[in-house]
Amino acid sequence: MAVVTLLTDFGLQDEYVGVLKGVILSNNPRATIVDISHGIDAHDIAAATYALKSSYGFFPEGSVHVAIVDPGVGTERAIIAAQCNRHLFLAPDNGLLAPILRDGSYTTIYRVENEDLFRHPVSRTFHGRDIFAPVAAHLSKGLALKALGPSVGMDQVQSLATNGPRFLSAKELEGRVVAIDRFGNVITNVHCDDMAKLDGRAMTISIGNHTIEGMVENYAQSGSKNPVAIIGSRGCLEIAIHSGSAARTLIMAKGDIVRVKVAT
Amino acid sequence: MAVVTLLTDFGLQDEYVGVLKGVILSNNPRATIVDISHGIDAHDIAAATYALKSSYGFFPEGSVHVAIVDPGVGTERAIIAAQCNRHLFLAPDNGLLAPILRDGSYTTIYRVENEDLFRHPVSRTFHGRDIFAPVAAHLSKGLALKALGPSVGMDQVQSLATNGPRFLSAKELEGRVVAIDRFGNVITNVHCDDMAKLDGRAMTISIGNHTIEGMVENYAQSGSKNPVAIIGSRGCLEIAIHSGSAARTLIMAKGDIVRVKVAT
Amino acid sequence: MAVVTLLTDFGLQDEYVGVLKGVILSNNPRATIVDISHGIDAHDIAAATYALKSSYGFFPEGSVHVAIVDPGVGTERAIIAAQCNRHLFLAPDNGLLAPILRDGSYTTIYRVENEDLFRHPVSRTFHGRDIFAPVAAHLSKGLALKALGPSVGMDQVQSLATNGPRFLSAKELEGRVVAIDRFGNVITNVHCDDMAKLDGRAMTISIGNHTIEGMVENYAQSGSKNPVAIIGSRGCLEIAIHSGSAARTLIMAKGDIVRVKVAT
Repeated sequence: MAVVTLLTDFGLQDEYVGVLKGVILSNNPRATIVDISHGIDAHDIAAATYALKSSYGFFPEGSVHVAIVDPGVGTERAIIAAQCNRHLFLAPDNGLLAPILRDGSYTTIYRVENEDLFRHPVSRTFHGRDIFAPVAAHLSKGLALKALGPSVGMDQVQSLATNGPRFLSAKELEGRVVAIDRFGNVITNVHCDDMAKLDGRAMTISIGNHTIEGMVENYAQSGSKNPVAIIGSRGCLEIAIHSGSAARTLIMAKGDIVRVKVAT
Repeated sequence: MAVVTLLTDFGLQDEYVGVLKGVILSNNPRATIVDISHGIDAHDIAAATYALKSSYGFFPEGSVHVAIVDPGVGTERAIIAAQCNRHLFLAPDNGLLAPILRDGSYTTIYRVENEDLFRHPVSRTFHGRDIFAPVAAHLSKGLALKALGPSVGMDQVQSLATNGPRFLSAKELEGRVVAIDRFGNVITNVHCDDMAKLDGRAMTISIGNHTIEGMVENYAQSGSKNPVAIIGSRGCLEIAIHSGSAARTLIMAKGDIVRVKVAT
Repeated sequence: MAVVTLLTDFGLQDEYVGVLKGVILSNNPRATIVDISHGIDAHDIAAATYALKSSYGFFPEGSVHVAIVDPGVGTERAIIAAQCNRHLFLAPDNGLLAPILRDGSYTTIYRVENEDLFRHPVSRTFHGRDIFAPVAAHLSKGLALKALGPSVGMDQVQSLATNGPRFLSAKELEGRVVAIDRFGNVITNVHCDDMAKLDGRAMTISIGNHTIEGMVENYAQSGSKNPVAIIGSRGCLEIAIHSGSAARTLIMAKGDIVRVKVAT
């Protein structure tokens, strides 16, 4: 089996995702293609990073993960591929993969430059179809990464400004909302490991004008109308309301600040 | 072949559905995974029941149908599995499966308690990933249902308040709108078999302030602007407008009442 | 391998697409089913034509492409199938396939009338499930087209009013907006081959009150707020804004007129 996963901001309304799959199957009829999501907000590279980081490890080892959120398509931005934690990754070199490679145990990173592997002519607007899809198909058939192009160091890979939370003191940290899920759960970039570093256990979470004392273990514990703080399936702090949308009730959006404080 | 179908209220915007598929493929690389829908309104258990009931029979016998609309995730609610009409079902014990098992010829129902089959650690917020997906994969590989846990009687399975229509007299019944589809068709819970029990044939359908005389056989018969009554692909009464949305034109929503009356 | 692609206006909210796949897999367990899109606007036959034309060629030769945008379902409208450019097509005879067959090198066109291949009873509202899906499955197993029904000439196939651009003079043509994609790119029916026929190279594109001088080669060239004209991945003229939605900024919608003029 050769699993190829797709994570893009293409949406499902247009034919773009179908075209990617057509090209992959044309190059590797035995590929098993799985959508992680195509609902990433257009050009939101950091959201793609979070979604990929939260999901790739649940796929079989050796899967090829293709992530295309690529506002620079058609410019001189590079495309990179790497093996990390026994998974293969392929993405534009725009910061999307950096946090995954940095946290994982990557081996070597390669720049994708071998045009023999591309579909020709290569368009300036749809590298997904002309570069990512055929290259992913080749990788899923076992092509060695080094056949893609020159190796590059981690220091040559583009980063986004770090998205992790900031410690304001030994007893307080500040993070941000990175996603609102379909249930209206407000997902932050504060990992439970970050919270464990705070010097104390009785947590107070502040978000907008709201303050939540303590954590719960499942959504149903919220009662029906009260926001609760919970460690969600990503391992990160979420704010949820059981029978409603925390995002709507608290009027929270991506980018908003969340503070976690422990009692002195 | 081993088909696993997925029906959830997870939506396609987030990575949740992709993660389910990753876990299934990690446990059974040969599974053929098919989405029935992930667009069920959040926590609408009855809508999931209708969608599953309308679709499972069109899949190959032996398919494993996983339905996750699970507001009680992380609480003590049980998870059940059963064979029924030569199909396998796996869902939270919250009423979702009861009407399907009751109408079908189920054999034995099992409570899913064998933790050896789960992904560990089991989170409190994402049993789809940690319980449903790996258990479904095992079932798709032929694991016997009795390996999941103890058998339970139908009387121990949770029910929702019955969703079928109510007979007001021998000549009149009252049902409800259970779904609005993408075309704006208003789908009710009144099955054609229910209508056949009415003592008479000349039907009048009342919905909101609107009255529709008689039934048509296809959408195009409506003329372009008039609402018509039709037996839809679920075998249930629908209200449709050929070149428009009956739901928008008639301002109908889920839960609204529909009455069917035959002439005296 | 037998690839079956699906292109419909069914959306993904309801169970309809899942049911199609169930029926296909019940008839051919070895089919590889790929969604091109289910997000075509309800009943927009021309949009389906454009999406199919832009995508089928990227799939393996011999793929079976099923396109169902079918406002006439349940009426006497025919269903047709044909081989064209080494691909197989199946669609209602309502104009959807005509431009593809006319531009390609089709062999013979067949009317789908062999009821032995259908699911019975055939509903009046869901031919996708009862006719298209089982027939597609049979074709994907190698059934000869002539087994479907009588052959018909291209002149017997329904057409839509032609959707190509109109030449106003040797130096000017007029086209229309046929799609707005997820990024807000405004996609027209003006193919780069049409533009090449204009007598001159310095192009001016007019759309609504806006005038764009010249073309760019990639989206990023637009600067962040200015609309640019570009040949998109369909090979057609698009209007785009790199960090925003051209459709929203310019208030453009499907059907709007675009003019391309060359300097005299």
